[in-house]
Amino acid sequence: MEKTMEKIVALAKARGFVYPGSEIYGGLANTWDYGNLGVELKNNVKKAWWSKFIQQNPYNVGVDCAILMNPQTWVASGHLGGFSDPLMDCKECHERFRADKIIEDYAAEHGIAFENAVDAWSQEEMKAYIDEHSINCPTCGKHNFTDIRQFNLMFKTFQGVTEDAKNVVYLRPETAQGIFVNFKNVQRTSRKKIPFGIGQVGKSFRNEITPGNFTFRTREFEQMELEFFCEPDTDLEWFAYWKQFCIDWLLALGMKKEEMRIRDHEAAELSFYSKATTDIEFLFPFGWGELWGIADRTDYDLTQHQNVSKEDMGYFDDEKKIKYVPYVIEPSLGADRVTLAFLCGAYDEEDLGDGDIRTVLHFHPALAPVKIGVFPLSKKLSEGAEKIFTDLSKLYNCEFDDRGNIGKRYRRQDEIGTPFCITYDFESETDGCVTVRDRDTMEQERVRIEELKVYFEKKFEF
Amino acid sequence: MEKTMEKIVALAKARGFVYPGSEIYGGLANTWDYGNLGVELKNNVKKAWWSKFIQQNPYNVGVDCAILMNPQTWVASGHLGGFSDPLMDCKECHERFRADKIIEDYAAEHGIAFENAVDAWSQEEMKAYIDEHSINCPTCGKHNFTDIRQFNLMFKTFQGVTEDAKNVVYLRPETAQGIFVNFKNVQRTSRKKIPFGIGQVGKSFRNEITPGNFTFRTREFEQMELEFFCEPDTDLEWFAYWKQFCIDWLLALGMKKEEMRIRDHEAAELSFYSKATTDIEFLFPFGWGELWGIADRTDYDLTQHQNVSKEDMGYFDDEKKIKYVPYVIEPSLGADRVTLAFLCGAYDEEDLGDGDIRTVLHFHPALAPVKIGVFPLSKKLSEGAEKIFTDLSKLYNCEFDDRGNIGKRYRRQDEIGTPFCITYDFESETDGCVTVRDRDTMEQERVRIEELKVYFEKKFEF
Repeated sequence: MEKTMEKIVALAKARGFVYPGSEIYGGLANTWDYGNLGVELKNNVKKAWWSKFIQQNPYNVGVDCAILMNPQTWVASGHLGGFSDPLMDCKECHERFRADKIIEDYAAEHGIAFENAVDAWSQEEMKAYIDEHSINCPTCGKHNFTDIRQFNLMFKTFQGVTEDAKNVVYLRPETAQGIFVNFKNVQRTSRKKIPFGIGQVGKSFRNEITPGNFTFRTREFEQMELEFFCEPDTDLEWFAYWKQFCIDWLLALGMKKEEMRIRDHEAAELSFYSKATTDIEFLFPFGWGELWGIADRTDYDLTQHQNVSKEDMGYFDDEKKIKYVPYVIEPSLGADRVTLAFLCGAYDEEDLGDGDIRTVLHFHPALAPVKIGVFPLSKKLSEGAEKIFTDLSKLYNCEFDDRGNIGKRYRRQDEIGTPFCITYDFESETDGCVTVRDRDTMEQERVRIEELKVYFEKKFEF
Repeated sequence: MEKTMEKIVALAKARGFVYPGSEIYGGLANTWDYGNLGVELKNNVKKAWWSKFIQQNPYNVGVDCAILMNPQTWVASGHLGGFSDPLMDCKECHERFRADKIIEDYAAEHGIAFENAVDAWSQEEMKAYIDEHSINCPTCGKHNFTDIRQFNLMFKTFQGVTEDAKNVVYLRPETAQGIFVNFKNVQRTSRKKIPFGIGQVGKSFRNEITPGNFTFRTREFEQMELEFFCEPDTDLEWFAYWKQFCIDWLLALGMKKEEMRIRDHEAAELSFYSKATTDIEFLFPFGWGELWGIADRTDYDLTQHQNVSKEDMGYFDDEKKIKYVPYVIEPSLGADRVTLAFLCGAYDEEDLGDGDIRTVLHFHPALAPVKIGVFPLSKKLSEGAEKIFTDLSKLYNCEFDDRGNIGKRYRRQDEIGTPFCITYDFESETDGCVTVRDRDTMEQERVRIEELKVYFEKKFEF
């Protein structure tokens, strides 16, 4: 079975996971809408994150901050000054390119390795390199470029009536800064002592030049970020703790080890303020892609905000009687990316023999958009089946289906990853039992209707 | 007890419900961040909506669409042409005003009633009225205004590299349009037959001139919208159904009848395409405010999209063998507003005698941000209490507290609306029981530890 993006995108659209955004108007540059199943899948991913990172974790609490923030935030975070791509145009064909990418592509083609990452070069260095090596336009082949200029990746808008500089605000490019500016507020109101963490789930926006790969890279995306505050010198221990915690979370939700790769950044790759960074990558059908960045950000962010806002970001440890600006470990996960990873990982086509191929999504039960399919064997049995459906719907997202033969109904549920199907048959009327069919083993067992609740409780635990 | 916004805002900030947005930078025009308790409260409100409107409702499914949509969407919806406020400046003091509001305030002051709502007048009519009646600037008292001009309420931004007209996109001013443009997609993938509904929870943005009243009116806000599609001529029945459904939802979550008002719009008030509209209002400390707008929007939206996109928005009823553009009933609720309403409704100060005032939030258990407080009577008993805390945290957001005497711990939980507190005492070690204290009655009962799960299951059902 070849697992391709084409197949997954087609299934996603056909079954209501993901549609192209604004499709009736020809779409809008790599925007996507989650359909009736996609919204459930993504919500389940977010719930699973919140459950393990916030609710069940004794260290952490959550927040939900505004997308629009005071622009001073982006001065302190460095996004206003440094969060940009170096762009240049071809004067011949008017295509626009990232200068660093053109150099990297040229270097890769010619087997050239650089000491410093190209995106750390100055504009002048890039321009000089492109001219020296007569690198040509990838589109038209000519060598006639404009100068390089920096293009900030933050979306800009105007709040208030006039479109002048004092009304400029930005759509946040990450949720993390909402946490940093509220560090003191949350510490005070939660009465947490260090070490503790603050997590947030929410939309962020980056005006990427080249979004793509389905929902992997989009300009509007959702993040699940944790900022974990600890004492200086304990940071590398906590870095190791959270790295393992993230790996365990993915494995617990059924991600396969062989589709996961842990990439520790080397010293030269690290941001100047970071002591350690690890990426957790997933093997998508289009190649390895980053899911989770786990970074030891030291006291960089809080110190920056302290400098710009003049507010004290120090924490006083009243047992040790010392005061310090906490160090931060940041595990930052893309909700859309990891949802896509779970979708790709779950996809399978099973050969049942005689040319019978079963398409099935092997979602972890906690992630499956529909938990239980409920079928009356015949429309005459609808009343009994509906009663079960109504009862279970209080606890789980269920689907009622009375169309087509049972085999076809099973296959429809397999294709959307429903872990269990209940069939209510003529015997159910007298023996008070139903058949429960397991998606993965395709085995069936007879369960008493009154015991269904307890039966499923264990199955969906996370 | 006088319930004031000052008290509620102060409690919200002190206990971690809501902080001013970007506070360390002096805030940003009426933006707010939900703190460690606020995020749980608001998430519970959204969960309660999703549970009753989507998961448990046999008619409805959900979606989650992008905030950035193809601008043609706003041509079809009328937001690009008509979603604007008439503004004018005072040439003397340079204050800016909504012309319709100035006229309305003048009329109210002088007991004047108009046949047509002022916001339906033309700019010329407004200007003429203001001049004829010599209405003065509310700030400086002079009469020297600029002309009136229309100010569109959509936030505008640029997607892609250049800030030119072809790259303009808008932040959606409502979630509804994401549903309309996907009507055919969802109908196809969910295999739903009419009548059925599509619901969505998500952020919207409106560049309001005068946001205010804490989280009641903000430029960035979250909506919970349902678009319910039905056959023409059945719309008024469904309108009545959903109106009652919304009222029941609020009552089931503990909203008091006397703090709720149902306002049916009169014919003259209705939008030209609407057959019926009802507002559900709540009595906030600052007065009555709209929570929920329930509107019969006829086939207006789908027809508009059909006209602009040229895509067929018709539905073929294969039993009746007729085709039609469905009618739509739209119950549209503000998540921030209704969260604020539940917070205000829950707030109470109880006189327990002898000058002892208990501040308590009487949240419905399903909405309470912390469900259960777990206390060891003494720090020596932490192990037993922690075991209970860990077990219950798998199911509920719990708080562990071992600081201060039990009475103070109860009061802290009362103030954040925790419905139950468990005290693990020295007897617990031998009799395997704990004391469970009820927030509202303040009564205590002894419950076996192994029965806690079943005990709470009923309490938190919704």
